[in-house]
Amino acid sequence: MSFRIAVDAMGSDAAPAPEVAGTIAAAREWTSLRFVLVGDEQRIRAEAQKAGGLPSNVEVMHTTEVITPDEEPTKAVRAKKDASLTVAARLVKEGQADALLSAGSTGALVVVGTLGIGRMKGIDRPALGTIMPTVEQPVFMLDVGATPDARPEWLVQFALMGDIYARQILGLARPRVALLSNGTEAEKGNALVKATYPLLQELESVHFIGNIEARDVPFGGADVVVADGFPGNVLLKTYEGVAMALFKAMKQALTSSPITSIGAALAKPGLKQMAKRFDYTEYGGALLLGLKAPVVKCHGSSNAHAIRSGIRVMKLALEGDVIGRLADAVAKLPAQKPKDKGDSPG
Amino acid sequence: MSFRIAVDAMGSDAAPAPEVAGTIAAAREWTSLRFVLVGDEQRIRAEAQKAGGLPSNVEVMHTTEVITPDEEPTKAVRAKKDASLTVAARLVKEGQADALLSAGSTGALVVVGTLGIGRMKGIDRPALGTIMPTVEQPVFMLDVGATPDARPEWLVQFALMGDIYARQILGLARPRVALLSNGTEAEKGNALVKATYPLLQELESVHFIGNIEARDVPFGGADVVVADGFPGNVLLKTYEGVAMALFKAMKQALTSSPITSIGAALAKPGLKQMAKRFDYTEYGGALLLGLKAPVVKCHGSSNAHAIRSGIRVMKLALEGDVIGRLADAVAKLPAQKPKDKGDSPG
Repeated sequence: MSFRIAVDAMGSDAAPAPEVAGTIAAAREWTSLRFVLVGDEQRIRAEAQKAGGLPSNVEVMHTTEVITPDEEPTKAVRAKKDASLTVAARLVKEGQADALLSAGSTGALVVVGTLGIGRMKGIDRPALGTIMPTVEQPVFMLDVGATPDARPEWLVQFALMGDIYARQILGLARPRVALLSNGTEAEKGNALVKATYPLLQELESVHFIGNIEARDVPFGGADVVVADGFPGNVLLKTYEGVAMALFKAMKQALTSSPITSIGAALAKPGLKQMAKRFDYTEYGGALLLGLKAPVVKCHGSSNAHAIRSGIRVMKLALEGDVIGRLADAVAKLPAQKPKDKGDSPG
Repeated sequence: MSFRIAVDAMGSDAAPAPEVAGTIAAAREWTSLRFVLVGDEQRIRAEAQKAGGLPSNVEVMHTTEVITPDEEPTKAVRAKKDASLTVAARLVKEGQADALLSAGSTGALVVVGTLGIGRMKGIDRPALGTIMPTVEQPVFMLDVGATPDARPEWLVQFALMGDIYARQILGLARPRVALLSNGTEAEKGNALVKATYPLLQELESVHFIGNIEARDVPFGGADVVVADGFPGNVLLKTYEGVAMALFKAMKQALTSSPITSIGAALAKPGLKQMAKRFDYTEYGGALLLGLKAPVVKCHGSSNAHAIRSGIRVMKLALEGDVIGRLADAVAKLPAQKPKDKGDSPG
């Protein structure tokens, strides 16, 4: 089976260079995959030249418009019919591609994913999930920003999605799924968390280990962490921010005297090893789950390596049939009660 | 003026040792302050012996019960009339003490503060505020867990409280007050943030600089960050967790080979300087704001130094008349509309 991946070439801060170089690297490594780079053809071909030319499994589709991060997503998607992102999504919708990758605005990707590609049956809202480093094995966190103001039954769907992702992409036999809260006890949480807890306890297919505090996430306290898109986004961005701030402070501290500078030079291999462990470009971006096809969102500041890592995640999602397995799991969910916000059957 | 501070001596994980040693250190340093250590008298006196004896400005009040972190706060506070925390709060309520410090459960402190000490006029809910280190000057963040599921008008009150804290305790002339969101643009956020934004824009006494992303907090993007208690708690605990995890990973990485170990030894002064900058014990715990008296909550894992830092914050709050100034600011608030959740006059 040969999967075809539509790559929005115009999304990243330095587009299209990282998209083109990353796609070419992936295309050379995984020759069974096929790619369509969607965007400004002239610029794409110029970048491809620098990266040693386009392999035969990479095509280019020319588009004239780009959606920028400062645009209101819904308006931008409606107005720019020839935007690289919109056209790439259309390829997926029309069956000309199996999956979509973009390093552009999350908001626009959620809109394009929902309207252009469409939600999976039984899933009410998409969730953005991402792998984060810990001192143990990585953790998969969702939702990190697609759906703020979630409802309990949506978080249940997120838990199902996270569980299947962890099985298929992380290769875990029985992922520990936890609910983000402000305390580990069952009665801790805001109204949403308290209403969701008993619903997750009843999910037979998922190994729910209870609430997790944000403090325990970097220590590997769970394999999958489920959250509303607002606090989930806060967790992800605090993670990134504190790590970056500490690396910056460490650099300043280590170069504060000649002696510490010598020490830093000697310690460099160790420090590099640590920095690599906490480097998000190793982990390949986020997956927008709950749609009819796999959609990968890479960081706006992605380099070619990060795009290639995103494609690697996409490959695993396609080969592991994450979408098919998720559809099976959703079909087995107990019938939901009507939309009564915050109620639990427990 | 001689302020008298009631210290719950039984709250911390290692109680009463840190409370007793920290209070004695503070009492020796600031001889104009007076203290009451509330708890098991025999154990308190034993610890005081180790710390060189009780100074004349420290008294002991014997109690027989302790509220533990795993108890349901409201039940525990109601049931244990002779708990150290309950009795310490009663001293404040009855005018025998001016302020309360505890390193026990946050939940119990919020209940005791609200029921035992009472809310300030014009404040609907208390907020827990804490100083966090950044690569620039520290930031004051509230609410970090007292009030999840906040309403827009409560966040406005939190902004007022944070502003006054930053002026009186951090000594800032015009603190930059920001609202925690999942994007910097005015239209980003969950429903609560979107409804709160225009209300903060209308606050004349506060220098509102708009939304802040969690990623920018560790870089000093604001002096005061206002949030609902749930995402605020997630931010604080992610902060702590990632910093601890990175220090742990750094230690492992630096001792991974003989060469990096030598480097680490030489770099130690620099690394220590950085660790100190990100050490919460320097910052003296959290302030429970919105009550009729200052209430300081120290970390459960506090050592004597952290308790002493908490008392330092308390001293600044008392001397800066944070409570009086806050009452003035609240009195100047525009009249609120009735409790219509999420509505903004803008």
